[in-house]
Amino acid sequence: MAQDRIRVFAPASVANVSCGFDVLGFPIESTGDTIEVSKTEEKGVFIEPITGIGELSTNPDKNVCGVVAKAMLKETNTQYGVSIKLTKGISPGSGLGSSAASSAGAAYAINKLIGEPFTEMQLVEFAMLGEALASGTPHADNVAPTILGGFVAIRSYGPLDIIKIPVPEHLYVAVIHPKIELRTELSRNILKKQVDLKTAIKQWGNIAGLISGLYEQNYELIGRSLNDYIIEPVRSLLIPGFNEITTAAKQAGGLGTGISGSGPSIFALCKGEENAVKASEAMARIAEEIKIPHETYVSTIAKQGCRII
Amino acid sequence: MAQDRIRVFAPASVANVSCGFDVLGFPIESTGDTIEVSKTEEKGVFIEPITGIGELSTNPDKNVCGVVAKAMLKETNTQYGVSIKLTKGISPGSGLGSSAASSAGAAYAINKLIGEPFTEMQLVEFAMLGEALASGTPHADNVAPTILGGFVAIRSYGPLDIIKIPVPEHLYVAVIHPKIELRTELSRNILKKQVDLKTAIKQWGNIAGLISGLYEQNYELIGRSLNDYIIEPVRSLLIPGFNEITTAAKQAGGLGTGISGSGPSIFALCKGEENAVKASEAMARIAEEIKIPHETYVSTIAKQGCRII
Repeated sequence: MAQDRIRVFAPASVANVSCGFDVLGFPIESTGDTIEVSKTEEKGVFIEPITGIGELSTNPDKNVCGVVAKAMLKETNTQYGVSIKLTKGISPGSGLGSSAASSAGAAYAINKLIGEPFTEMQLVEFAMLGEALASGTPHADNVAPTILGGFVAIRSYGPLDIIKIPVPEHLYVAVIHPKIELRTELSRNILKKQVDLKTAIKQWGNIAGLISGLYEQNYELIGRSLNDYIIEPVRSLLIPGFNEITTAAKQAGGLGTGISGSGPSIFALCKGEENAVKASEAMARIAEEIKIPHETYVSTIAKQGCRII
Repeated sequence: MAQDRIRVFAPASVANVSCGFDVLGFPIESTGDTIEVSKTEEKGVFIEPITGIGELSTNPDKNVCGVVAKAMLKETNTQYGVSIKLTKGISPGSGLGSSAASSAGAAYAINKLIGEPFTEMQLVEFAMLGEALASGTPHADNVAPTILGGFVAIRSYGPLDIIKIPVPEHLYVAVIHPKIELRTELSRNILKKQVDLKTAIKQWGNIAGLISGLYEQNYELIGRSLNDYIIEPVRSLLIPGFNEITTAAKQAGGLGTGISGSGPSIFALCKGEENAVKASEAMARIAEEIKIPHETYVSTIAKQGCRII
């Protein structure tokens, strides 16, 4: 039975995953947003004062949760309103799926609140409205893993076709969030609109390798496949110490590295928690050397996405 | 113990496999070349008159088997020569890995003849020398599946990293070879050297879907993933009736279609032999309508590559 109040944890996520630009993503356990939704007698969507990290609008038309909620209530012609209390655990602009966690968490929570009329795939589509508001593009590579959990591939956007890829048992991720300003839009705009066919071929060879590595639990293959010849060479220029941080992560036991989402966060996939801890420490040491405030996370690839707490 | 004479069957193969341009390939059972190699007292490589389809040079420096053989004998400093008798079952210029079958078969046979000093991966590298002679590019997406068998992905050429992908039990292929002239080189030269990033993303979404579909034995996903937005729109223009043939194959039960190698052969992946037979018949009907001589094949994805016969 539907309740009057639902509280949901929505995990942060790593999108792109090196060779999988716009196509791959996975949620991480260690951090996320909390979204509490309550029924209100008055129809409409109300955003309560937001707590936690960052400064976000409480105008429902300018808040990703608000946009998602309005669309869901409209679609179901719900005869009551919802009030949304958002506690941000993920910094906006971190590259860790901050807007996606809020969007996905809102979609997940409201669906529960109104009696679960929607499938998970529909929730992804609603959450994509939040992404469109946040970045101008309704991308799914953060919201889909945040809702579905696990390693996720977006095969196609038209129609939306989302595939769950199995996660090897000992796969961990180390993440460093260098606290520098980096706007998603800027990070997207510096990309070249054309790529060399030869380079594109290298990229899809690597994505084939990565998907195979995940199925085979072949950690070395996963590591060898984490090459991005297209996006990383451009975007990494915006991240101070990028080469030093990724080199340190690999030397400390990381299988491979990449920019998380549009950055500035950097991730390293690792075999086992111990290697992930070492990789995160090695990344942090470089950030300290170059005096960049930062935060690190060590996590499994969260098998569960949004969940009621 | 090494013998004095070895006879090998080297299967035809489908490379590119739609979204996997330059990266994916698999051998087919129904047709191939036969390569017989014998030791000769005189050092050197000798090509006997070639039988079967096509007109190929018997000059060892201009014949793919000759080039492969010379490199292998040189590398091992072998103190005798080899004589190669090639029976072509695959038409050169068919897009079915004709030069690859000869190159791979020669590499496989000579390795057996000289006591198997080389690994399968080394044989792939030797066979690539034949491909370089035939097309100017040492590509591996035909020779690797022809040697290794099964569905194969080339993750990287530098260093060469070849991955075997499992083949779903009921996966069949229907192939039509429209007998029109189409030079590999021309077919390669008409490709654009640059691709839109947006299009490249669609392509690598599909390759992720295809690899996942193969692991999951998810035939529908395999079918949905067989889209090539980059190469096929250009190359298909060189193949009369391409759209009609592929549409007919899909209507007759094909999961999805693509150009085999650089064409003009067209393949349809199918679930089950019955669907593959129907797809091949449907493709043949179109070719008959437009009066193009043709040959069709129905085959499993050969799990075994080159083999002694």
